[in-house]
Amino acid sequence: MSIQPKKASESLTIMTEIVLPNDTNVLGNLMGGRLLHWMDICSATAAQRHCRRVVVTASVNNVSFDHPIKLGSIVTIQAKVSRAFTTSMEVYIDVWVEDRVTGERKKCNEAIYTFVAVDQHGAPLPVPELVPESEEEIKRYGGALRRRQLALILAGKMKPHDATELKALFSPS
Amino acid sequence: MSIQPKKASESLTIMTEIVLPNDTNVLGNLMGGRLLHWMDICSATAAQRHCRRVVVTASVNNVSFDHPIKLGSIVTIQAKVSRAFTTSMEVYIDVWVEDRVTGERKKCNEAIYTFVAVDQHGAPLPVPELVPESEEEIKRYGGALRRRQLALILAGKMKPHDATELKALFSPS
Amino acid sequence: MSIQPKKASESLTIMTEIVLPNDTNVLGNLMGGRLLHWMDICSATAAQRHCRRVVVTASVNNVSFDHPIKLGSIVTIQAKVSRAFTTSMEVYIDVWVEDRVTGERKKCNEAIYTFVAVDQHGAPLPVPELVPESEEEIKRYGGALRRRQLALILAGKMKPHDATELKALFSPS
Amino acid sequence: MSIQPKKASESLTIMTEIVLPNDTNVLGNLMGGRLLHWMDICSATAAQRHCRRVVVTASVNNVSFDHPIKLGSIVTIQAKVSRAFTTSMEVYIDVWVEDRVTGERKKCNEAIYTFVAVDQHGAPLPVPELVPESEEEIKRYGGALRRRQLALILAGKMKPHDATELKALFSPS
Amino acid sequence: MSIQPKKASESLTIMTEIVLPNDTNVLGNLMGGRLLHWMDICSATAAQRHCRRVVVTASVNNVSFDHPIKLGSIVTIQAKVSRAFTTSMEVYIDVWVEDRVTGERKKCNEAIYTFVAVDQHGAPLPVPELVPESEEEIKRYGGALRRRQLALILAGKMKPHDATELKALFSPS
Amino acid sequence: MSIQPKKASESLTIMTEIVLPNDTNVLGNLMGGRLLHWMDICSATAAQRHCRRVVVTASVNNVSFDHPIKLGSIVTIQAKVSRAFTTSMEVYIDVWVEDRVTGERKKCNEAIYTFVAVDQHGAPLPVPELVPESEEEIKRYGGALRRRQLALILAGKMKPHDATELKALFSPS
Repeated sequence: MSIQPKKASESLTIMTEIVLPNDTNVLGNLMGGRLLHWMDICSATAAQRHCRRVVVTASVNNVSFDHPIKLGSIVTIQAKVSRAFTTSMEVYIDVWVEDRVTGERKKCNEAIYTFVAVDQHGAPLPVPELVPESEEEIKRYGGALRRRQLALILAGKMKPHDATELKALFSPS
Repeated sequence: MSIQPKKASESLTIMTEIVLPNDTNVLGNLMGGRLLHWMDICSATAAQRHCRRVVVTASVNNVSFDHPIKLGSIVTIQAKVSRAFTTSMEVYIDVWVEDRVTGERKKCNEAIYTFVAVDQHGAPLPVPELVPESEEEIKRYGGALRRRQLALILAGKMKPHDATELKALFSPS
Repeated sequence: MSIQPKKASESLTIMTEIVLPNDTNVLGNLMGGRLLHWMDICSATAAQRHCRRVVVTASVNNVSFDHPIKLGSIVTIQAKVSRAFTTSMEVYIDVWVEDRVTGERKKCNEAIYTFVAVDQHGAPLPVPELVPESEEEIKRYGGALRRRQLALILAGKMKPHDATELKALFSPS
Repeated sequence: MSIQPKKASESLTIMTEIVLPNDTNVLGNLMGGRLLHWMDICSATAAQRHCRRVVVTASVNNVSFDHPIKLGSIVTIQAKVSRAFTTSMEVYIDVWVEDRVTGERKKCNEAIYTFVAVDQHGAPLPVPELVPESEEEIKRYGGALRRRQLALILAGKMKPHDATELKALFSPS
Repeated sequence: MSIQPKKASESLTIMTEIVLPNDTNVLGNLMGGRLLHWMDICSATAAQRHCRRVVVTASVNNVSFDHPIKLGSIVTIQAKVSRAFTTSMEVYIDVWVEDRVTGERKKCNEAIYTFVAVDQHGAPLPVPELVPESEEEIKRYGGALRRRQLALILAGKMKPHDATELKALFSPS
Repeated sequence: MSIQPKKASESLTIMTEIVLPNDTNVLGNLMGGRLLHWMDICSATAAQRHCRRVVVTASVNNVSFDHPIKLGSIVTIQAKVSRAFTTSMEVYIDVWVEDRVTGERKKCNEAIYTFVAVDQHGAPLPVPELVPESEEEIKRYGGALRRRQLALILAGKMKPHDATELKALFSPS
């Protein structure tokens, strides 16, 4: 069975959450751990929509929390597969918060999770290729290879001088 | 007021959790998002023990999930501050799972979170320096600077050729 | 201050949930109460997006549960304001379940909730009018008046022969 | 096997809940969705006590939320089967809130849920007839038929002119 | 202000809970900790109904778990104040489990909790005397003094030879 | 198969929890029931580490709540098996709260739980003997027999004059 490539947009997953008291720290702001949990569910769903298999979280990269999110805020989480490798998928997550009164939405977070498709014994399975279409999808698709090389180096599974994409970044000229 | 440096071991925080049904996916393994949440609480406590201030999660780096963790497992999470910068702290987290029958503990996860100490308005506050003692603490203290440079580059806040630690890694000779 | 009417589409709210073990009954299907809870959060968010005020649930009408939803399913909940009255808003909710393997989405539930916009003391506040655009929005807008008359009669706040919309339904010819 | 009819009082189910922070909205009042969830568990238990089978929620009718319920309140939920049809049961739910200081109980909510008895494959099973005894039980038993006709019409499963109970309500004389 | 004594029956509190997956251990039975939590909420409500004040748990005595309670069981928890002292109240809790098919109720647990009435600063407040009426209420009222002496001795706040009730129990003749 | 005795220290289990809004009562202090639940999980883990079997809570003895624990506090729970009997284990639990600013730890609670090791049908299994080492472990080991006799008497399973340990406590001279 050959696997048909899929568009990035086919995996789009949207979650809306309201920040409840138990989600907040002593300053009344959303705790990072709760948002990490929500983002995991949202991005796992996107990965599952791409490959139609059970998926398991393989890694979390480069999450930064730049703006505090207040109790009672409406949080919108949007996830889309940004690139597929042999058995894994990188998922890009964008988080917005909505002003209760003006309705203005502010981007407050980006994150990247990686998932692996597995069978019922947990063994990896091949996934469809990803076809990026929009400008942003294409940009994120390109960056995914660089992030993957970086992750492999940090995990000691790739030698720095084999990481052609990254070497260019640090090269003298 | 000058701030006394503190030892890494003073921030040591240990959490023990049992994997319950609602923490698991359809394969009966712990979901990544739940572990991310537990690690956030554990490492935030370690950071708070270091600086005795309210702390907020600033970023999550390089979490990888290498071994599935079964329903009913005893999970031990251990967090310790690995390096302090002006107002931020890097926390290193180790996760073990214990075999129910033999009691053998297996390392199944490492993660690094960064926290910022804040006042009641969320403005950053200076934190004590960290003094590493054990061999592992010293090694992680050293790696923290490299990870910080990498994070600053990825966030576009530092130019690659200013990252002296990283350049060495990718240099030709 | 006059209040600008708003389009139905401006209130669209989407939630995605995965059915976890604690959400299920002894047959392994999603419990009705959990879905009622999710639909309340989703539709309250839609109502809040319409009026930009705190909203409180006023009533729930005509929810029916036609298809069992299995453990592990991806549930998508979509809510949109269907009609605004002086201080209240009717919200229409559609629930789909997605087949894990084929990705086919099946409509499995419809519900209607009513919300009231309130100030900080809980007193009702006027809300913007709703402008329906799509064919479905227009149909639901029309039905909302009939449902409102029915609710008023059942609550003893309107006499049956004043309910012009409903009388037509039961009239002899 | 013939099924013995049962008294309404045999299905009486009482739940007591304290309103915790996570159950409340930004005004500090109980959120509707949480109460809908509690009422579902309470009424499902009443239906199960009537038929001694697994039951699933079939529909929710005419819930209205008339009085805000404050954080920390003691909420008492009382459910009793009001009428049994071939395979379904209508359950009537009354909700009281208790004043913390005077102990005075105030009725703040009524709701009606319908459940179906099912076998392990989800197929409907016959349920015992219900015998109402008290004045209130008899009144609710009578109203149940009218509500059922209304639900069937709204679901498009009955023609208005076949709903003899309802036609009388809207008839000219 | 004098405080009117109150009957034991006025504090009666009934809770009904269904055992969900997350409440169970690996054998599929209700975990003790969950039941301890439910009994605390139920008995705190009974104590609050007796004194109409904020109450805090002071101690837990002699809880034993004699029968496993299966996933999906209907658990009924019943609490009643058994005796009032100056500022504290002993509450007796009975737990039943209901057979899903026959409806037979089996007593599976008894527990005794003690609560103290407090003002907004946490300082103890006097509570009404308790008037036992039924045979069981009178028996439990009598036993409460013996249990109190025992608790005081175990806490080192009473000398054994001052515990007249207990000495009789262990006296040679 | 003979069972090797084990040291008390081998069962040591540490849990760290942060008091969240939903864990508190109307005074903003940790509710007793939540702490009872945490202590159950922590002590069950200690018992399981001693016997390497599934364990079930058999009883809870003499828990007292002496100091209120504020919202946002860091709570450390430490459990260790204090004595093993044929098939049961007494576990001693110590609870500390940490001052957020000074870091000073204050002991605020002690509790004793008893667990039984069981096979997959719930039948009791023999457990290893416990070897106490530290002064505190030896003292608690000694007290465990007295507590066991007391529990047996209170449960009506032992006659007071057979409780040699306790008789001494209440004897005239």
